[in-house]
Amino acid sequence: MSRIPRIVILGAGYGGIVTALRLQKELNYNEADVTLVNKHDYHYITTHLHMPAAGTDHPENARVDISKLIDEFKIDFVKSTVIEIRPQDRKVILEDGTLSYDYLVVGLGGEPETFGIPGLKEYAMNIRSINSVRLIREHIEYQFAQFKRDSSRPELLTFVVGGAGFTGIEFVGELADRVPELCREFDVDPKLVKIYNIEAAPTAMPGFDPELVQYAISVLEKKGVIFKLATAIKECTPDGVVLATGEEIKSGTVVWTGGIRGNRLLEEAGFETMRGRIKVDKTLRSTQFDNVFVIGDCSLIFNEEGRPYPPTAQIAMQQGVTCAHNLTAAIRGEPMKEFKPQIKGTVASLGKGEAIGIVGKYKLKGATAAFMKKIIDMRYLYIIGGIPLVLRKGRL
Amino acid sequence: MSRIPRIVILGAGYGGIVTALRLQKELNYNEADVTLVNKHDYHYITTHLHMPAAGTDHPENARVDISKLIDEFKIDFVKSTVIEIRPQDRKVILEDGTLSYDYLVVGLGGEPETFGIPGLKEYAMNIRSINSVRLIREHIEYQFAQFKRDSSRPELLTFVVGGAGFTGIEFVGELADRVPELCREFDVDPKLVKIYNIEAAPTAMPGFDPELVQYAISVLEKKGVIFKLATAIKECTPDGVVLATGEEIKSGTVVWTGGIRGNRLLEEAGFETMRGRIKVDKTLRSTQFDNVFVIGDCSLIFNEEGRPYPPTAQIAMQQGVTCAHNLTAAIRGEPMKEFKPQIKGTVASLGKGEAIGIVGKYKLKGATAAFMKKIIDMRYLYIIGGIPLVLRKGRL
Repeated sequence: MSRIPRIVILGAGYGGIVTALRLQKELNYNEADVTLVNKHDYHYITTHLHMPAAGTDHPENARVDISKLIDEFKIDFVKSTVIEIRPQDRKVILEDGTLSYDYLVVGLGGEPETFGIPGLKEYAMNIRSINSVRLIREHIEYQFAQFKRDSSRPELLTFVVGGAGFTGIEFVGELADRVPELCREFDVDPKLVKIYNIEAAPTAMPGFDPELVQYAISVLEKKGVIFKLATAIKECTPDGVVLATGEEIKSGTVVWTGGIRGNRLLEEAGFETMRGRIKVDKTLRSTQFDNVFVIGDCSLIFNEEGRPYPPTAQIAMQQGVTCAHNLTAAIRGEPMKEFKPQIKGTVASLGKGEAIGIVGKYKLKGATAAFMKKIIDMRYLYIIGGIPLVLRKGRL
Repeated sequence: MSRIPRIVILGAGYGGIVTALRLQKELNYNEADVTLVNKHDYHYITTHLHMPAAGTDHPENARVDISKLIDEFKIDFVKSTVIEIRPQDRKVILEDGTLSYDYLVVGLGGEPETFGIPGLKEYAMNIRSINSVRLIREHIEYQFAQFKRDSSRPELLTFVVGGAGFTGIEFVGELADRVPELCREFDVDPKLVKIYNIEAAPTAMPGFDPELVQYAISVLEKKGVIFKLATAIKECTPDGVVLATGEEIKSGTVVWTGGIRGNRLLEEAGFETMRGRIKVDKTLRSTQFDNVFVIGDCSLIFNEEGRPYPPTAQIAMQQGVTCAHNLTAAIRGEPMKEFKPQIKGTVASLGKGEAIGIVGKYKLKGATAAFMKKIIDMRYLYIIGGIPLVLRKGRL
């Protein structure tokens, strides 16, 4: 008696959740057993995390219960943490059990890349999960509360954001919006608060349209953000950061947004990786194990100019669609499709009512871009959860 | 040309604010110059502080702008911190100036009494001001956020409250109510949270009706509070508390409510004090300087059994009434009144919908007592700010 194939999806981020949703739709009953494994029983909307991190929105608006997204009659959900992947044995070791698979989808997401800068791991916080952003929010509020006990420590009101990429820029935009509110709440003079955004590259948002980047910087500077571009962080300490110039910025709060690498489990599993990301073929399969698909921040894929695509939600979601199609094809013995990313647009918010973006051939800024950002967020909610989710979590 | 007398009131707590309000009403124009000095530009409702400390109410509901209470055409308000009182020179030295007076009212409030227990000053927090309770609230939330980053530290979810007097009991009641909410907010299993209330005396709320105290303990134990009565805290450390029994309770949060003493400035000013409180005569004047009135937690006054009255809001307010009357009498050369406290009732809340109390000859508990507590709170708002303040800050 032949057994039906077992598909295990690791991670319910953008890539994993879209793969699961598409498989649920495309596969017929009894074509495969699909199991989705995730550390939490919720999916979180990573592109929204800069808001709860700054405290300008509630973390609940950045997560969705997985049980509300998938049909548990069609897909098994296991809430557990992956400890080890054994591609030779076709097994995944979980914190509390083991899963065997015929096909594996690795969508475990990224980890902060610290580029070996000493102290970042120990003393900096990251915008990477619901837990991490709640910590940042509470940490920031706690700094204000502590300052009212000991106003001889101005570093409590100094906030350092390392990295002026998308996440860094979006976070300082929100933080600058939150500061006046925190100052009112804690009776603090806003002039005492300092927000630094420090970036080693000569420009913020390297690779993005320079005119829009300039607009973003001027918007954020008007909100009080102090930029230090072309300035590397040499070290992070319990007291703040030391810059490559030797300058020390004393700060009770360092948030590092300077880079993303793939999950460490992948190297440990014996995959060939580059910064923790697995090179995949055009069908999104590992070049070493053709029953292992890799999507999202864990996958390394090059554009036509030979440069790796950035680890974005947009690409992860599109990979999920291709991945689900190719899994179905593999099971049915049909030909697979090649992954061809379509960059529809990129919008970065700069706080309330302000954003920059490129959508199609249009450059957007200000309120138009901010509106487009909300549309993109709602479109995503619609894709994964339909109208009910848009109504529950969407914001215009 | 004779100068009109100058009255300086130090502190806008219960005693000071009632004195100011009554003087404003009783004195005629040009009978005296009245100046009210306070560290903050708001008055806070100390008996309400256990709620914002636990996070069950917003700190704004526990404070009122002084400018909304006093008539600044009749009373000058100076926002400053008192550095020194020089009763011989009839001068008060402020952080940023000097005030001369003919009559002084000392209503500077109490300070935590640590009874020399090592570490309490350094590592424990106190429920004593808006700033201090915001710190406690933020500290507690930060513990939950940190626990989600490092769940190997159960002490982050252990909360120690030292002292089971009124403040301690009311605070643990609120905290026990807040915990389920925090657990939902931070995805924490409520079973991991521990609240200890530690009291050196053999009973909680020493001196209060034993039947009601027993009721309070059973209500709070049902909410999960662990009582350790007849147990002294030997030391407070960065890691928690060490008990007289030798037992160590590891805890990231220690809140000390175990005692109140008078303001340290009074000893430094040369007043004879007992635990920082100045013994006053029946007219509420210092026995050393008959132009200095002392009210509230700074004043020491004995009941008919020869025991000092407790430092309560009720007594401070009644002292304010007598003090204002006697100041007016002094200025007009009329006879002064003796202060005769009338204990109308005492109600302690035990969290949402629960309280115990004695009002007149009635023992109250449960919802009735909780309702009475709210009536008392509203009555106070009415006394200091009339109907508008009741509508703005009152809660039923």
